[in-house]
Amino acid sequence: MGPQRALRRTNPITYVLAGILLFGFVIFLFSSSGGDATGLRARTTKAASSILSPASLPFYKPKDPSERQPPPPVVHYYLNNVTTSEDPITNQETVLILTPLSRFYDGYWNNLMKLNYPHELISLGFITPKDSAGNAATKRLQEAIARTQAMGEGKKFKSISILRQDFDPPLQSQSEAERHKMDNQKIRRAAMAKARNSLLFTTLGPETSWVLWLDSDIVETPTTLIQDLASHNKPIIVPNCFQRYYDDNKKAMDVRPYDYNSWVDSPNAQALARDMGKDDILLEGYAEMATYRSLMAFMGKSEGDANNEVELDGVGGTALLVKAEVHRDGAMFPPFAFYHLIETEGFAKMASRLGWKSWGLPNYYVSIG
Amino acid sequence: MGPQRALRRTNPITYVLAGILLFGFVIFLFSSSGGDATGLRARTTKAASSILSPASLPFYKPKDPSERQPPPPVVHYYLNNVTTSEDPITNQETVLILTPLSRFYDGYWNNLMKLNYPHELISLGFITPKDSAGNAATKRLQEAIARTQAMGEGKKFKSISILRQDFDPPLQSQSEAERHKMDNQKIRRAAMAKARNSLLFTTLGPETSWVLWLDSDIVETPTTLIQDLASHNKPIIVPNCFQRYYDDNKKAMDVRPYDYNSWVDSPNAQALARDMGKDDILLEGYAEMATYRSLMAFMGKSEGDANNEVELDGVGGTALLVKAEVHRDGAMFPPFAFYHLIETEGFAKMASRLGWKSWGLPNYYVSIG
Repeated sequence: MGPQRALRRTNPITYVLAGILLFGFVIFLFSSSGGDATGLRARTTKAASSILSPASLPFYKPKDPSERQPPPPVVHYYLNNVTTSEDPITNQETVLILTPLSRFYDGYWNNLMKLNYPHELISLGFITPKDSAGNAATKRLQEAIARTQAMGEGKKFKSISILRQDFDPPLQSQSEAERHKMDNQKIRRAAMAKARNSLLFTTLGPETSWVLWLDSDIVETPTTLIQDLASHNKPIIVPNCFQRYYDDNKKAMDVRPYDYNSWVDSPNAQALARDMGKDDILLEGYAEMATYRSLMAFMGKSEGDANNEVELDGVGGTALLVKAEVHRDGAMFPPFAFYHLIETEGFAKMASRLGWKSWGLPNYYVSIG
Repeated sequence: MGPQRALRRTNPITYVLAGILLFGFVIFLFSSSGGDATGLRARTTKAASSILSPASLPFYKPKDPSERQPPPPVVHYYLNNVTTSEDPITNQETVLILTPLSRFYDGYWNNLMKLNYPHELISLGFITPKDSAGNAATKRLQEAIARTQAMGEGKKFKSISILRQDFDPPLQSQSEAERHKMDNQKIRRAAMAKARNSLLFTTLGPETSWVLWLDSDIVETPTTLIQDLASHNKPIIVPNCFQRYYDDNKKAMDVRPYDYNSWVDSPNAQALARDMGKDDILLEGYAEMATYRSLMAFMGKSEGDANNEVELDGVGGTALLVKAEVHRDGAMFPPFAFYHLIETEGFAKMASRLGWKSWGLPNYYVSIG
């Protein structure tokens, strides 16, 4: 690798810059047209050779500033070589971690930092809401980025994007009847789906192999989360998400199931859906809408094999690994009723319409804070 | 503007590089967090000031090569200022023209070159199929790009991406019964939808205001196509597409309607859909599936006002202007039966589920070759 860039740092914000490598646009030219002689292969090149190189590669200033710059390269991305395999590190597969961030948790960032998938293969993307909580989250996120990206090779990430939502957060009332809670949940999840789509459409690049959706309140995962999930080589895979809490009876910390969006469908749910209006959605966890779906949240067994797989019809998004080709085929998060499903559950349904199956790992855990 | 970059050109392919400005990744930081003092505003900055600037800005080498480089900027993209207005040139709105290119037509490129929307605001994106026709089209496209991008300011485009499909083209038989033709059309349009999605998800950037879908056989449009369509300020708008042909009876060239995918829905079509299997799709132009939809193709009137608008339920993609926010919300091209619609027609339905209406201009014409 080339020498570390030396930057004059006049302002805390410039720390942010040090490690931020810009997302690449890309030109994918045909391999047999004689380009090899002049082209750089992204996969075999550690750094950009020219100021006009795609910004997804690190660029190092020449040691001798009077050194003549070569013409900028045409970079060939052989998309057929952008593999999504069960051995992503060996195959140098890039991961785009996407997080809708309504609140910044130190635990989230600390856990992210501990992921031992090579950080130089990880791009991060965040979208924060357009309100005062979003302002605060953005500010704390920027501070965390500044600290991290100043740490140098090994720690800092390949590139980082922060988007602000261009729509207002949905109004939510906290003190209404159950019926209204369901209405609120539909509004909230539609807004979340739009945020996920904006983030996805804006940040997904041609060299991305995997997309890891990671909620902003996920504070605890195995450090090998990415490798572990990818090792199953599934188009869509979701671990089991638990919440740690203090049990007043036991006077001790305990865990409880958290994410009810990962499930195997049931005849009851399908019957409910049949009788619904076209804009109505099925929601999990409401007594007056008993779906009798098999929830992955309750499938975990103590001493269960962490590698046990179960095929799912709906998935949650607290932690969700998706092959980029699933998204590229068009799978997004429906903000409207799609087969009476919305957001991540609708995504699983849409992916299944595109021919991609979803899987869950009932005995592999992540925790929200 | 700064001085034109001088490049040593050792190979024809390097011509391609001269004008190719790379798609930007982007950082969108919050405006009130004190960034103004250090940030560049994309809208007020003509060129990048640092080698680490987002590659969507032109970068000029310093005249004095020993000149000290400032630290790279954090670029603020105020997405709320990425307008989509009826006056896109005044507002410097960027247009991403996306073309699934199965064959390269000189007429297409010549017409594209004549568009008088400022080329420095236009990015181009192509996806070509993974077969020998796609190889040939890619080669000719690259040659055209090389010629164009060497022409310098005013002619060359802001950036250009070429993607190759990562899936095989669908098999198509040319000599089968009508029933099989319909099957073929479904397969073909599902493949086209996936191609459009791959292109869209990979090339859409945070600064894109408009997406113009333009088929590779569109060889004739008004030079003011983009401004004209944008002036209606609609989320989705489609002109009427005709085909020029030689009429053997009249012994002269004539025009005939071409695109049957832009239509106003009918009770008959909805009744047909109700009786269909869930994976079946409605197709236009087959006697055994008479939809009695109102086709925009037949709404044009000689001497009709080119500004006449009609609200549509289905749209074709031969030429189709879409506000980028419609796509960012999640509107894509369903490669599966979506309300028994597929591809561009399914897109219009999906957009409508997201709250965006489609419009057509029956008296505003483009032609395919």
